[in-house]
Amino acid sequence: MNYSKRIINLQKCLMQKNMDLLILDDPISLIYLTGLKLSSGKIFILKDKAKLFVDGRYIQAAKEKTDIDVELIGEKVLMDFIVQNNIKNIGFDSSITTYHSFERLKSFLKKIKNAHDHSIELIPVLSPLKELRVIKDLDEIAVLKKAASLTWKGFEHICLHLKEGMSEKEVALEFEMFVKKNGADALSFNSIVCFGKNSAMPHHMPSDTKLKLNDIVLMDLGVTVDNYNSDMTRVVFFGKPDPTLEKIYSINKKAHANALSVCRPGHKLKDLDIAAREVLRKEGYEKEFVHSLGHGVGLEIHEFPRVKFDTEDKDVILKPGMVITIEPGIYIPDLGGVRYEDMIVITNDGYENFYR
Amino acid sequence: MNYSKRIINLQKCLMQKNMDLLILDDPISLIYLTGLKLSSGKIFILKDKAKLFVDGRYIQAAKEKTDIDVELIGEKVLMDFIVQNNIKNIGFDSSITTYHSFERLKSFLKKIKNAHDHSIELIPVLSPLKELRVIKDLDEIAVLKKAASLTWKGFEHICLHLKEGMSEKEVALEFEMFVKKNGADALSFNSIVCFGKNSAMPHHMPSDTKLKLNDIVLMDLGVTVDNYNSDMTRVVFFGKPDPTLEKIYSINKKAHANALSVCRPGHKLKDLDIAAREVLRKEGYEKEFVHSLGHGVGLEIHEFPRVKFDTEDKDVILKPGMVITIEPGIYIPDLGGVRYEDMIVITNDGYENFYR
Repeated sequence: MNYSKRIINLQKCLMQKNMDLLILDDPISLIYLTGLKLSSGKIFILKDKAKLFVDGRYIQAAKEKTDIDVELIGEKVLMDFIVQNNIKNIGFDSSITTYHSFERLKSFLKKIKNAHDHSIELIPVLSPLKELRVIKDLDEIAVLKKAASLTWKGFEHICLHLKEGMSEKEVALEFEMFVKKNGADALSFNSIVCFGKNSAMPHHMPSDTKLKLNDIVLMDLGVTVDNYNSDMTRVVFFGKPDPTLEKIYSINKKAHANALSVCRPGHKLKDLDIAAREVLRKEGYEKEFVHSLGHGVGLEIHEFPRVKFDTEDKDVILKPGMVITIEPGIYIPDLGGVRYEDMIVITNDGYENFYR
Repeated sequence: MNYSKRIINLQKCLMQKNMDLLILDDPISLIYLTGLKLSSGKIFILKDKAKLFVDGRYIQAAKEKTDIDVELIGEKVLMDFIVQNNIKNIGFDSSITTYHSFERLKSFLKKIKNAHDHSIELIPVLSPLKELRVIKDLDEIAVLKKAASLTWKGFEHICLHLKEGMSEKEVALEFEMFVKKNGADALSFNSIVCFGKNSAMPHHMPSDTKLKLNDIVLMDLGVTVDNYNSDMTRVVFFGKPDPTLEKIYSINKKAHANALSVCRPGHKLKDLDIAAREVLRKEGYEKEFVHSLGHGVGLEIHEFPRVKFDTEDKDVILKPGMVITIEPGIYIPDLGGVRYEDMIVITNDGYENFYR
């Protein structure tokens, strides 16, 4: 991964906003900018430099594994750095910094004011890495594909091992063991495995329900590889499909295809959701689609943007490098539900699907 | 679990602080006060009532599974509730509420002011449930013991299955599979499994390192059962122990016993840490003990209080019902390390150890 390029891109944003210093300290931002998995630490981004501050546990690894300037964290060290670099304003991530941390930051700046007669303004910034992280580079896409490919293999493994009498929990655990033995660092989320009418609940958790002949089986699965996540949902019919479920499966697949047909640079996110909903409306199933069409995937399993016609990201314009899920669903209480979820990357003239 | 008693206890705190309303919306507080695992929702605690607000996904489950008054969440519903109950001040958890959420709360209150000419003061409260959650009741202790007992069984299972050539990752996965097949809902944390000199790093992550004859094996393990966590560390010698490691193992065990000897109501947390460090100092290994003696365990794997002589919780007085870990360690770079971790509950006249 090209971490120095990410830092340079962030520095361009600082220049545009005329921000002297941006402090980030959440684990995801630290991974994105350094590649290091740190339970604590702070990265200071200035217009022309960057510095990582960590405690004794991480100093050696940070020095060995990154090109970034690293120093042992401490109040005096941070204070001196701020004064020496003549920082007049500091940005912080208002979507992550707690009220308590903000208050502590304020008293820290008060100390600087008292000791050095140096005033600093605090600037809340909502998710400062959002616009950078949404565009994945080739290294990120390669890792995301690796995670997706392992998810697919785990799904195939499960399909071969489904047996009457197995519980949802057993299927979920079989998937988990398979992917962990084959290179997954973790699951991206608790696997969703639903038999029969449990599939009508989009967030059903694996239970002791046993698989019966002719059940519908819905599986929403994902794995983490090198900090990046994957997401996929498939439905299989274990035996003879119920006619209504078979019908909604095929309608939902059409909605999915219609959303994919508008996946290319220049379209807005809402266009995708509207395309899927159009098909469902014509077939009389729009109300049964109770969630978003999709979401961004990367270092987090759900990240910016949300793909829905009526949410704040609706007018975000598709650009090459965006990785999103496309996952329409139809849910009929007490009967069952279907969802079909792919993960795609927007390319220069369309999209590439990570699954088959 | 007696959720209504927890709410009554919290209401007593509100009365002491003369707070009209406390709003909590983080998943752990919602579990603690309702037993429900909600990815979003808000609980409003007033001096004489409590109300849970959730979205459409959770309304049915909330009504079926709790005694608490439940309503569908929405801006107008919350606004009306606040005005009707004549709320003059609102407390929020400053350790969890982000700066952005705080700003949104402020504009929400501005709307109320404009619509109803009704002013409300906001009061930051640092971890309002801390003092209640630290004392575990009998139901909680029973579940914590269940989690601890399963962790022990998983450890025994591993000890029987250790083989030359196995990797740390394989051992960790074997533990995970065993406990998940035997009732664990999740791991409390990523298992730490270290062979040989890897044990010198307190937070080493399982790697592809293979087990060799005469290696020391350090395992820090924990499982989640019904939302409650367990934590345990043991060291085993796979073959003939290295003499230095054997020596520090026995010194560390003495430090552990000395800490346990002061585990009873009335002592301060720092007394425990000092008791352990005293033994290590006499033996010349105080500097090799690089972390806290322990921490609280419950709905979170690391929760209040931290057991260390020089931290903010140092003067917290032990009370019956507190569940903490006791985990001294000695680490010698490039050779190896030992840690011995039990989980105990403070009783009326001493403590009970969850392990043997």
